[in-house]
Amino acid sequence: MTYCVALYLKDGLVMLSDTRTNAGVDHISIFSKMHVFEEPGDRMIALMTAGNLSLTQSVVALIQEGVELDGEVRTISSVNGMFQAAQLVGAAVRQVWKRDGHALKEQRVDFDLSIILGGQIRGDRVRLFHVYAAGNFIEATADNAFFQIGEHKYGKPILDRALTHNTPLEEGMKLVLISMDSTLRSNLTVGLPLDLIAYRRDSLKLETRRRIGEDDPCFKEISDGWSQALREAFRSLPPPKWAD
Amino acid sequence: MTYCVALYLKDGLVMLSDTRTNAGVDHISIFSKMHVFEEPGDRMIALMTAGNLSLTQSVVALIQEGVELDGEVRTISSVNGMFQAAQLVGAAVRQVWKRDGHALKEQRVDFDLSIILGGQIRGDRVRLFHVYAAGNFIEATADNAFFQIGEHKYGKPILDRALTHNTPLEEGMKLVLISMDSTLRSNLTVGLPLDLIAYRRDSLKLETRRRIGEDDPCFKEISDGWSQALREAFRSLPPPKWAD
Repeated sequence: MTYCVALYLKDGLVMLSDTRTNAGVDHISIFSKMHVFEEPGDRMIALMTAGNLSLTQSVVALIQEGVELDGEVRTISSVNGMFQAAQLVGAAVRQVWKRDGHALKEQRVDFDLSIILGGQIRGDRVRLFHVYAAGNFIEATADNAFFQIGEHKYGKPILDRALTHNTPLEEGMKLVLISMDSTLRSNLTVGLPLDLIAYRRDSLKLETRRRIGEDDPCFKEISDGWSQALREAFRSLPPPKWAD
Repeated sequence: MTYCVALYLKDGLVMLSDTRTNAGVDHISIFSKMHVFEEPGDRMIALMTAGNLSLTQSVVALIQEGVELDGEVRTISSVNGMFQAAQLVGAAVRQVWKRDGHALKEQRVDFDLSIILGGQIRGDRVRLFHVYAAGNFIEATADNAFFQIGEHKYGKPILDRALTHNTPLEEGMKLVLISMDSTLRSNLTVGLPLDLIAYRRDSLKLETRRRIGEDDPCFKEISDGWSQALREAFRSLPPPKWAD
């Protein structure tokens, strides 16, 4: 399984993914699910992937090699805006479906894939998309300021409560790490290390890129601090009155 | 969907269920998923059900009408211990499977059903079981002090962090209400009102039984208080240092 989360903030983007891939419990590997295409001054585009690894790796390869889009072959380095980038990823997904879909169906393997795509290209604004297995996609807005893929439920309550489009970038990093921490604790198929990026609007280069391992002191501080803060928050609430 | 949670505590049991049943988003009803069989001084047995309502209602009916168990017809009022109560529920599930399983399969409807069964019968200790759709069951222990059925992921992180077998009964009630509150906020198919019971070990009668509606001041206090406490806990944590 996988957990990836991306925040669409007034100040930019924050994206976090785990790295655990498993095909059964005794076949666990580390694969980065975070793919960054950065040309400082021109574009910063990041992709996070969930689902069948053979499918998502194919999509990531195709958008670099080139996919036909409206009669022209485009790559993630040549698309002229983030909407076109989303179309490119969608077209790559459909190409993989065309190639692998039938054979998977015959073996009763789901065409299981979902992708979060975020970034900014010079002349365009910051945009964040969620691309589905059919190659269609939706875009984040100020009202819907986050996307999650994979094992998303454990980490959703804190986002539902604490996130708005106006959350600052640093707070956003804290928030996705807490959301991930809840997921790591409750589901074994999501695992360290983590890949974190933060992008500040209009900078056209990454502000933060970080691989977070087990011994990362910052993550440990947030993880332990959050556990303690939660327990204290719990203790501080009065028990329901009808218990008296 | 449904969310039900039960705590197996040193002091007794706490059980909480929602009441929303939906067959599509425009067919939403209120059905109690909490069934209490109490004979003060002799037994307090409670069942919470998730899954296909036609199946779970049949199980609840059968355990009252009688099911054959080891050559004798037993009911939930005549079983002589909680282990036999779990066997009775399992046998009822299998009887429903025998009656409905084939027809459901032909219509491609899952035999979707799960049950939490908790209580105490005079001469026996407090026990808590999770009965599956095949009629088999597992029992809670001090190391695994809670069971959840239905939409369980949103409400699991706080249980993973704050619950132990030694949590007092009143704290347990607070905890399940917080766990439910997280679920209600993140998933529309789980809805108020709630049914809450608390049972104190060896009392052989319910200590608390409560239907909690939208305007319940205690639940509102916990829900609002928890939101605020969470936001404060979040604010109190420093942002990751690499953000500086």
